Amino acid sequence: MTNSPLALVAGAGPGLGQTLISEFSSGGFNTIGLKRNVVGSESEALEALDLTDADQVQRKVGQVIETHGTPKLVVHNTAKLVISDFEGTTNEDFEKTWRALVLSAVNLARAVLPAMAETGGGTFIVSGATASLRGGANFAAFASAKAGLRSLTQSLAREYGPKGVHIAHVILDGIIDTEASRARHSLSPDRMMNPQDIASVYLTLAHQPKSTWTHELDLRPMGESF
Amino acid sequence: MTNSPLALVAGAGPGLGQTLISEFSSGGFNTIGLKRNVVGSESEALEALDLTDADQVQRKVGQVIETHGTPKLVVHNTAKLVISDFEGTTNEDFEKTWRALVLSAVNLARAVLPAMAETGGGTFIVSGATASLRGGANFAAFASAKAGLRSLTQSLAREYGPKGVHIAHVILDGIIDTEASRARHSLSPDRMMNPQDIASVYLTLAHQPKSTWTHELDLRPMGESF
Amino acid sequence: MTNSPLALVAGAGPGLGQTLISEFSSGGFNTIGLKRNVVGSESEALEALDLTDADQVQRKVGQVIETHGTPKLVVHNTAKLVISDFEGTTNEDFEKTWRALVLSAVNLARAVLPAMAETGGGTFIVSGATASLRGGANFAAFASAKAGLRSLTQSLAREYGPKGVHIAHVILDGIIDTEASRARHSLSPDRMMNPQDIASVYLTLAHQPKSTWTHELDLRPMGESF
Amino acid sequence: MTNSPLALVAGAGPGLGQTLISEFSSGGFNTIGLKRNVVGSESEALEALDLTDADQVQRKVGQVIETHGTPKLVVHNTAKLVISDFEGTTNEDFEKTWRALVLSAVNLARAVLPAMAETGGGTFIVSGATASLRGGANFAAFASAKAGLRSLTQSLAREYGPKGVHIAHVILDGIIDTEASRARHSLSPDRMMNPQDIASVYLTLAHQPKSTWTHELDLRPMGESF
Repeated sequence: MTNSPLALVAGAGPGLGQTLISEFSSGGFNTIGLKRNVVGSESEALEALDLTDADQVQRKVGQVIETHGTPKLVVHNTAKLVISDFEGTTNEDFEKTWRALVLSAVNLARAVLPAMAETGGGTFIVSGATASLRGGANFAAFASAKAGLRSLTQSLAREYGPKGVHIAHVILDGIIDTEASRARHSLSPDRMMNPQDIASVYLTLAHQPKSTWTHELDLRPMGESF
Repeated sequence: MTNSPLALVAGAGPGLGQTLISEFSSGGFNTIGLKRNVVGSESEALEALDLTDADQVQRKVGQVIETHGTPKLVVHNTAKLVISDFEGTTNEDFEKTWRALVLSAVNLARAVLPAMAETGGGTFIVSGATASLRGGANFAAFASAKAGLRSLTQSLAREYGPKGVHIAHVILDGIIDTEASRARHSLSPDRMMNPQDIASVYLTLAHQPKSTWTHELDLRPMGESF
Repeated sequence: MTNSPLALVAGAGPGLGQTLISEFSSGGFNTIGLKRNVVGSESEALEALDLTDADQVQRKVGQVIETHGTPKLVVHNTAKLVISDFEGTTNEDFEKTWRALVLSAVNLARAVLPAMAETGGGTFIVSGATASLRGGANFAAFASAKAGLRSLTQSLAREYGPKGVHIAHVILDGIIDTEASRARHSLSPDRMMNPQDIASVYLTLAHQPKSTWTHELDLRPMGESF
Repeated sequence: MTNSPLALVAGAGPGLGQTLISEFSSGGFNTIGLKRNVVGSESEALEALDLTDADQVQRKVGQVIETHGTPKLVVHNTAKLVISDFEGTTNEDFEKTWRALVLSAVNLARAVLPAMAETGGGTFIVSGATASLRGGANFAAFASAKAGLRSLTQSLAREYGPKGVHIAHVILDGIIDTEASRARHSLSPDRMMNPQDIASVYLTLAHQPKSTWTHELDLRPMGESF
């Protein structure tokens, strides 16, 4: 166990997840990413687990806590995007999206929040999206799961806030600048959200004093309409 | 096939569901309730099916449509209430609540909306609750599912509205006056919502002209704080 | 004093206001419109007053109540639209818009709500707009006033609801089909909101039983995006 | 003209305003407070002006800009609280509240935003409150003005964001820990919001890169229900 406080990043894929890991590490956290598949060449700072599998999350995060201490910062940042009209969206799409976005957060919260409440707090941040706030054509599965996740985050805030755990929801209202999104979109990078800048906001939330906690904020690049 | 337009009420338990059936019938609709268990003594106006089972919904609602025509009014009114702090809410609670409230609406929508869009419209109403708008302590599972359901309804409205199907979400912000709620709460009946009055609002929505569709409204008894 | 209950329509210009008057009259109300300038050829059902002038509203509405009894239905439907970028919007624009939309509602509420609360209730409806929910480029003055009006309506609902007065806010999310809007927009009439259909919704609100009051609903024509 | 960027704090009374001035100064800004009455013993960092007087704001802020350069950070933080039931709230209360909270922001925005847009940006922050989001009994005047102010802020964001000015709205959802509030409330200071902590959030907003601007965030002390 190092002296650095533990940070966990659930959903540690290339893109925002990996940037959160490296920025949290630079920011003084002993940071571990949780993701389904970890290949040999990847950093040791990753733990392979299926966040939708309650037993696995409980067991593996339990081991991490035993080894590294109770986390002071936990981020839920899993991704599962389905874009399709309703008739083209299968029940499997709805179910997988809900499992990936909502049930994974339930599993993560269950594995960390009681311990965090007991040991004096910390910060639990959930990544939201534009679709967290409203449904839209071609987003029935994604928006429904993101809305359910936002509501879950509100319930957790109202239960764990008084116990000293800061629960926050960040609405990422724009395209994150990653290799994948550069390939997919023709947007100029300065119309996208820099993952390091997002990580910096998450770190600021993690350091907010108990006098002034933010539960929800939005982030969007200059010029993004809203 | 009668000449009366078909109405379907998914979630036809004692309480609001059965009142919707009887009031829609009085209002000129050939009304059929969809519910899991139908006992012999119950009205023929009920079809036994598990709304969370996609195949069953597709097959049985398909048969109903074949026999009675495409519905002009469909209500999603399933119930699944879990009240418990987060740590006492199991993953099964989360999953069952999501299946009962969200997946059932997906199944119902899939079984009726394409046909309604093809045959010139109709109205699809979803019963919401206070918890549809915000999470709360002890409501993590219920509020999350209701928020997901509300978002789904918004997505459906944006996809099927332009195709002529009126999709509405009604926020029932109060206790419905039923035998069960009289037994459970000490509230005076005049602080509860009369199910016949709710049914009357649903009928009004079903008759709104295309010039003035309501997507969302709230209902609460006089004196209910909000 | 007739036996018909009194309805007041504040903001009785050509368009929605005059249709509300004629539809409320057909619906059994003794209806009086309140507007600034009444010309000789206009119906006797109009009272000339400046709704932004507190003394005048108090005195003239007081006389109307003395003659016709306490109203059972009151609608605030004044109009004052400014469309301009911020730099082109003068302080006078901001002030006039606030007076026309918010202060007029304060004056109207002051003149009728205490009497309505004392005599057993009634309904007070405020016409909102898309801009009531959010600011937007070129709508700084109008949206700000409409948001202030919506908030005022919420405060009134929370004060007068428990006293038996039903306070409702209707979000008119679309272009109302009037001569003026046909001249201004190239929209097909079936993409606009029919004022008679809106009046019918207001009448329905006026007849809602105390068991199921709507505080807020939206109205938009089929196909209007939202 | 110093080399430090200029910050303006409109509404510089004892409490949050003065803390913003001192913290912005510590944070490297040449900070000037704008308030109605400045007495001799007060810091030179104050400019006496009536923010509700358009001409005065235009002239005096114009002089400040001429002397110190275009501001990089501007905060609207005026206060005018009325707590009274509707019948006890006078029209003068409504009007003064609107002038103090909304018109003052219009005046301030007019005096700084065009110059900020021209000279490459900066940040304009508006202090909101719980009442910005909803009306409430006894808050008709205050909530209506705060809702109007929030809407104005949204309009400004949508007009000036694309021009490079970051416009943000901060919902202060709790009691600010000041001498006055300690005298008025029996709240323990650790249930109140520390003004220095609020100032630190405002500084963070002022330093957000264009890739990730926050338009709205809430702040509340741990344990404050919401």
